[in-house]
Amino acid sequence: MKNPKIPLTVVRRLPLYLRSLTECKSSGSMTVSSQELGEALDLNPAQIRKDLAFFGEFGRKGIGYEVQYLINKIEHILKLDRNLPVALVGAGHLGTALCQYSQNRHNTVEIQYVFDASPLKIGSQICDLRVRPVGEMEDCIRQNDVKMAIIAVPAEHAQTVVEQLVASGITAVLNFAPVSLRVPDKVHVRNADFTTELLSLAYYAASDE
Amino acid sequence: MKNPKIPLTVVRRLPLYLRSLTECKSSGSMTVSSQELGEALDLNPAQIRKDLAFFGEFGRKGIGYEVQYLINKIEHILKLDRNLPVALVGAGHLGTALCQYSQNRHNTVEIQYVFDASPLKIGSQICDLRVRPVGEMEDCIRQNDVKMAIIAVPAEHAQTVVEQLVASGITAVLNFAPVSLRVPDKVHVRNADFTTELLSLAYYAASDE
Repeated sequence: MKNPKIPLTVVRRLPLYLRSLTECKSSGSMTVSSQELGEALDLNPAQIRKDLAFFGEFGRKGIGYEVQYLINKIEHILKLDRNLPVALVGAGHLGTALCQYSQNRHNTVEIQYVFDASPLKIGSQICDLRVRPVGEMEDCIRQNDVKMAIIAVPAEHAQTVVEQLVASGITAVLNFAPVSLRVPDKVHVRNADFTTELLSLAYYAASDE
Repeated sequence: MKNPKIPLTVVRRLPLYLRSLTECKSSGSMTVSSQELGEALDLNPAQIRKDLAFFGEFGRKGIGYEVQYLINKIEHILKLDRNLPVALVGAGHLGTALCQYSQNRHNTVEIQYVFDASPLKIGSQICDLRVRPVGEMEDCIRQNDVKMAIIAVPAEHAQTVVEQLVASGITAVLNFAPVSLRVPDKVHVRNADFTTELLSLAYYAASDE
């Protein structure tokens, strides 16, 4: 069963819906309206209804969405109903923080392989994972059919790393290095450079004097 | 001089332009076309021209944009031409990584105050900054007229922290805790939850079988 091509912006909002729905579930709600989701996520309810309509008619007028049903549906759409191993490159503070997040969330998308170039880090443990030498990266990714990777290395190494990842079969990359990566069209890169977020936030922080 | 109200989506792309322009400058280019910027950033050139038109007529047909002029202009628009201190709450691995990024980039937006609740961390140094007790947070932020903060604490503490920040006069927050925060309308929160990015990336990583 294939879904129609879904715009990137919609795909990016689905995990937000999932998070909000999980919070609803924890607080005991069985149903939720697009209005309530909109308030929790600071999004327009009409936008939410339009996004979810890509995947079928979930909501009912006057009742809203069934929380558990919608959770299952979004997990299926995002293919989170299967196990997706993630390779992390870079075992510094950022990499360690990412591992901790990953293991705490009990997601099916989980960092399972960690690589670093530094002899000081190779062989050490972060969370429950052994840090492997980058020299083993390509074989390991290929053998374990890993498709997703996170780049948490310094900017000057990121392009070399992404080329090795792509050569090993990685198709989706979350890049924390503050640099634009060149990849083939079939590979999907998301930049998660926090300085970009911080700089755009300055627009809202500075006084208007 | 005030600019017209600029849409959030446009403000969020400005740091990307800035990064790409800085890369152009490093490689010796004096001018750049919207086409070239579009390729580097995987954005539609028409979109880029439209975004930049919010701030005046920068580009010239057949020549493109003057790199240094556009850098100065965007820095001014984002108010990056003044010093903006940032308070960081949470001195774990993530907080430490954020400090390192902040200090390496030599931006005017810089983490200058770090707070933590743990006696194990209070008094220690991350980068060149002494970790202060959260008990000092409100006074310190008020006295130093800090307007921006980063939340890098566990999800269960994030709402309490954001309330203290808002009470101290913070107006812009970058939130790394994987939870939706409730804040007054005048406060601007950006969520930088990396698990959200990772989950939406799964859509592109999973095979279609």
